[in-house]
Amino acid sequence: MRKIALALHGGAGTILKSTMTPEKEIAYKTALDEALNIGYSALEKGASSLDAVEATVMSLENCPLFNAGKGSVFTNAGSHEMDAAIMTGKDLMAGAVAGISGVKNPVHLARMIMEKSEHVMLSGVGAAEFAKLLKLDFENEDYFFNQFRYDQFLEIRDTDKFQLDHTEKKFGTVGAVALDQNGNIAAATSTGGMTNKRFNRVGDSPIIGAGTYANNNTCAISCTGHGEFFIRAVVAYDISCLIEYKGLSLTEACEFVVNDKLKKFGGEGGLVALNTNGDCVLAFNSDGMYRAWKTSENKKGVEIYR
Amino acid sequence: MRKIALALHGGAGTILKSTMTPEKEIAYKTALDEALNIGYSALEKGASSLDAVEATVMSLENCPLFNAGKGSVFTNAGSHEMDAAIMTGKDLMAGAVAGISGVKNPVHLARMIMEKSEHVMLSGVGAAEFAKLLKLDFENEDYFFNQFRYDQFLEIRDTDKFQLDHTEKKFGTVGAVALDQNGNIAAATSTGGMTNKRFNRVGDSPIIGAGTYANNNTCAISCTGHGEFFIRAVVAYDISCLIEYKGLSLTEACEFVVNDKLKKFGGEGGLVALNTNGDCVLAFNSDGMYRAWKTSENKKGVEIYR
Repeated sequence: MRKIALALHGGAGTILKSTMTPEKEIAYKTALDEALNIGYSALEKGASSLDAVEATVMSLENCPLFNAGKGSVFTNAGSHEMDAAIMTGKDLMAGAVAGISGVKNPVHLARMIMEKSEHVMLSGVGAAEFAKLLKLDFENEDYFFNQFRYDQFLEIRDTDKFQLDHTEKKFGTVGAVALDQNGNIAAATSTGGMTNKRFNRVGDSPIIGAGTYANNNTCAISCTGHGEFFIRAVVAYDISCLIEYKGLSLTEACEFVVNDKLKKFGGEGGLVALNTNGDCVLAFNSDGMYRAWKTSENKKGVEIYR
Repeated sequence: MRKIALALHGGAGTILKSTMTPEKEIAYKTALDEALNIGYSALEKGASSLDAVEATVMSLENCPLFNAGKGSVFTNAGSHEMDAAIMTGKDLMAGAVAGISGVKNPVHLARMIMEKSEHVMLSGVGAAEFAKLLKLDFENEDYFFNQFRYDQFLEIRDTDKFQLDHTEKKFGTVGAVALDQNGNIAAATSTGGMTNKRFNRVGDSPIIGAGTYANNNTCAISCTGHGEFFIRAVVAYDISCLIEYKGLSLTEACEFVVNDKLKKFGGEGGLVALNTNGDCVLAFNSDGMYRAWKTSENKKGVEIYR
């Protein structure tokens, strides 16, 4: 069997062991492991990297622990607006959605935009209209309601503040990258954005080249972090270019961008990355990043802290 | 006086002398020249490159000839949805807006998002709400109405087609790049998107790294073309990386991306680019591109065809 690999993240930020209960830690690790196994077992059965990252991210979207899909934070209007993107490294096809409400799995919508429209990126009510035409699953507000998220929201609703997921500073985004048996890589990212966000803010997750990128020649990347910095630094494509134009290895490129460039720039966060060799990098400059990975070379891990 | 330079475009595509009347040609060239002079004379008086690109693009947005601002094409709903972005090379600050309706000058809104919000990108009704809070100029549907655009729209409204600006295949977008007396560069782009577009499609113009990018270390770029390809190829940042990581000159990088990579990829269009040396490149792989440039080294031009 040819090499396969999958890596995922469930957000980065100030995630400290000192503020985590054993029960919460188990719940997070169980959810990460479950998402990992869904994607990895699909790869083992011969699924494409595109199918694997979509299935992995959908699993994380369906879990209330992460700020994406079901677990999305509240906007200032008390609603949920989600962003997602997907890209396949074989042919550089991409799909993205910004500011979507009500759709159960934004990453699936991103894939449908890639496959069923002539566009890369749709947004807002127009994207919802497209999802309805394709009869994608919608959920009502009850599905997206979560007391913990709502309490976070109530704390800052009447202020001008917006917040990065948790009261602990966490960049809630989920994402995955995969390498399949045919040697193709893919990346997908999904997020509920910032608590109390206003003005239909768009973060880096649905921006091809910023939060999400895949190219068989270089790497597949899914980012999580303070989106504004990731957009301005074009993080995902920067790593790709450092590999393609400067000859850096995947590890060197990720380390340089995350722990040198982004750190100096003020951009807290991290990413998961892999290439067609099956190299797998999980890099972050924050205290922690929910993450998991598995490769056919018997490497596996489910971790939270630095 | 230190070097200054300004370059602008008013869209690329199938623009042929054979299908142009002398009157139309004069009207286009007059409008391009006027926008050029507004930006360039500002630079001469010591304005920042940011002010110059904003003023230049606002002039093009206020002209009904170009698909941006007042001249924006109709969406499938018979409305106007505009995208814009601005970025400054000194500090990599950026602002962008997607799917904005009613605002007179989307590029000015993009600048306000950069300067007055903590975000890079806002969209749709949320972006309009932000513009209202800042008391930006709004215009009603009459202002954006244009019989020629409306006729274009009626032709294809009841089909599934969307069209790139004109019946002649033209990618209607406007943009500018500038170098100021302090050695700082900036870029701005604005567009009305595709005629008959649906689903709140977002093109490359407001995507930092795709249609718009500026970095004093490398270049300032504003693109025009088939947005989906420009997003997937991360065109503007690709040029920046070819300069920074591979050591290409601005001209080499632009030529390679526009006339080699993009052409093979199927991405029709062009761009204007400059750097802090005052080098100025206007590259396109289509039949024509509305364009103008002026530098303190006495180079000036206003051209349409190849």
